[in-house]
Amino acid sequence: MKHPITTLLLSTSLATSLAGMAAANDLRDMAREYFEPLPSTIPSVKDNPITPEKIDLGKALFFDPRLSASGVFSCYSCHNLTTGGDDNLETSIGHGWQKGPRNSPTVLNAVLNEAQFWDGRAEDLKAQAKGPIQAGVEMANTPETVIETLNSMPQYGEWFTAAFPEESAPVTFDNMAKALEAYQATLITPAPFDAFLNGNDDALSAEAQEGLQLFVDKGCVACHSGVNVGGHGYYPFGLIEKPGAEVLPPDDKGRFAVTETVDDEYVFRASPLRNVSVTAPYFHSGKVWDLKVAVQIMAESQLGEELSDAEADSLVAFLDSLTGTLPEVTVPVLPAETATTPRPTAEIIR
Amino acid sequence: MKHPITTLLLSTSLATSLAGMAAANDLRDMAREYFEPLPSTIPSVKDNPITPEKIDLGKALFFDPRLSASGVFSCYSCHNLTTGGDDNLETSIGHGWQKGPRNSPTVLNAVLNEAQFWDGRAEDLKAQAKGPIQAGVEMANTPETVIETLNSMPQYGEWFTAAFPEESAPVTFDNMAKALEAYQATLITPAPFDAFLNGNDDALSAEAQEGLQLFVDKGCVACHSGVNVGGHGYYPFGLIEKPGAEVLPPDDKGRFAVTETVDDEYVFRASPLRNVSVTAPYFHSGKVWDLKVAVQIMAESQLGEELSDAEADSLVAFLDSLTGTLPEVTVPVLPAETATTPRPTAEIIR
Repeated sequence: MKHPITTLLLSTSLATSLAGMAAANDLRDMAREYFEPLPSTIPSVKDNPITPEKIDLGKALFFDPRLSASGVFSCYSCHNLTTGGDDNLETSIGHGWQKGPRNSPTVLNAVLNEAQFWDGRAEDLKAQAKGPIQAGVEMANTPETVIETLNSMPQYGEWFTAAFPEESAPVTFDNMAKALEAYQATLITPAPFDAFLNGNDDALSAEAQEGLQLFVDKGCVACHSGVNVGGHGYYPFGLIEKPGAEVLPPDDKGRFAVTETVDDEYVFRASPLRNVSVTAPYFHSGKVWDLKVAVQIMAESQLGEELSDAEADSLVAFLDSLTGTLPEVTVPVLPAETATTPRPTAEIIR
Repeated sequence: MKHPITTLLLSTSLATSLAGMAAANDLRDMAREYFEPLPSTIPSVKDNPITPEKIDLGKALFFDPRLSASGVFSCYSCHNLTTGGDDNLETSIGHGWQKGPRNSPTVLNAVLNEAQFWDGRAEDLKAQAKGPIQAGVEMANTPETVIETLNSMPQYGEWFTAAFPEESAPVTFDNMAKALEAYQATLITPAPFDAFLNGNDDALSAEAQEGLQLFVDKGCVACHSGVNVGGHGYYPFGLIEKPGAEVLPPDDKGRFAVTETVDDEYVFRASPLRNVSVTAPYFHSGKVWDLKVAVQIMAESQLGEELSDAEADSLVAFLDSLTGTLPEVTVPVLPAETATTPRPTAEIIR
């Protein structure tokens, strides 16, 4: 015979659970109006059919330090796959120990951003890829030297031919960039938030669900929405109230440098928030290391909201649910230099 | 009915083949007096039982740039597994864009060397591991900051506990070094030469077999023998004839700095030659990029031999057969920094 109190407890627990499920369903329905789970297959990209051969080539290039003038830096150096796809520095350190102007964004899921760089000046990853390789403070190389380097190693020639079988002279700077884009398209990191969007109530803790509700109610979602929870749309940093000069240095006017339109002063692309918990420090200036502080700064500067401590904690719990799982990445084995490979130079010539 | 010429050809071919096999067997018997194939299991090391947990921890540490003061360099930076376990530079570039004094040796099979560093000043890899982390021109960190960094990330605490289950406070600089040694013990690269030593005649081309014979006959084997084809024993660079000052800079007196014995001036540990074809540039000075030239310099300076072009080519063909297969290495996912993680600093303070 069942004890009456046990029966009562079971019923209460069942009722709570059913109510929880209904609430989770409502929250999910609302969330799906603003967000989209990651795709289960490699996203396609514009003007660049993705093939296994192109991915393999792109992976080799991504890891190859010989794309830099010094031989010290590869794409992986500042987009380190062990640490969230970025470099955990305020701004990257590059050729000649120079500091870059802005924080290195994560490469993870970057293929799903509407445009690349903090100011969206590159349309896509194949346009973006050419930037750091040539930037004097980053890899400090030239397209000519990159092509000479790649042509000096016969294995690269074979890989380019396999990746671009229809071309008679496939080793080009453009194709290098396309292969890099193809590889990066594989760096998709499904997270608990995706599992929640896909129907798993238990994927988000109660606090993370509260945070998600707040994220929508407070208006964060106005800029940070879509599959990457941001990564599309341009907004002034300091819409309501400009943050301090340390966080928003006056001499970096953001998208103004791209469009030369006064309205674009201090305008940046809304940051994609996937893996934000593992990609400190924050903002283009990289001056804030604590995610909760970053959330509070955003609330004040963009929404004019002073968050309670509990609200900020819930929002952080939601953001934590955006930390995804890196696909298994095996270190590629690269071809050795030959007699015709340009030698690395540590000199600062520009 | 068989055509008589075919029969004749077959017999001749069979006879040649049998003669070839006999020659290969003789060569193998001789080679096995001087060399040893790589073991098929992870080598054991002194005072450091290797466990899967220790290997996993060591791998995380090996890839973690936060072991350096700047957050820019990990062990992997100068011992890059994509490019033969070294960095393809004359001498490594480290903290503050400073150049290290000697060429970065490969980490591959390093566990099998009798001692570590060009001058053998570290008894083993756990002693070696502590050097670059603290060297001002390399990672420029301190044991205290390393331990603070590791303790700031709870995941590392768990990994250290799993790797050193018998210790109550396992996060120590010594244990970090032991874990790094355990991981590096897995970086063993079986090569065609091993297959030949193990009985496969076809693993070495005829030219490589000639090179092997020359390697023994000319006397290279006097210093470069054993499982790592070198990596044990100390010899003066320039035994017969000192190479030029570019290759042997007068201010680097090698093992003299370790032993302070005049006899050890310009004495270095005989280089292990596994993967030598993919780890240019050569010598402690890193001044020679062409393996054939390096072989010729060695023959002149150590043996007083002027090699013919064909001899040098054969020796290079043999050395090519020492290029091994890297075990599959999956990029580890490292824990994120926390509020107590020491912040990276690019400053040169020493």
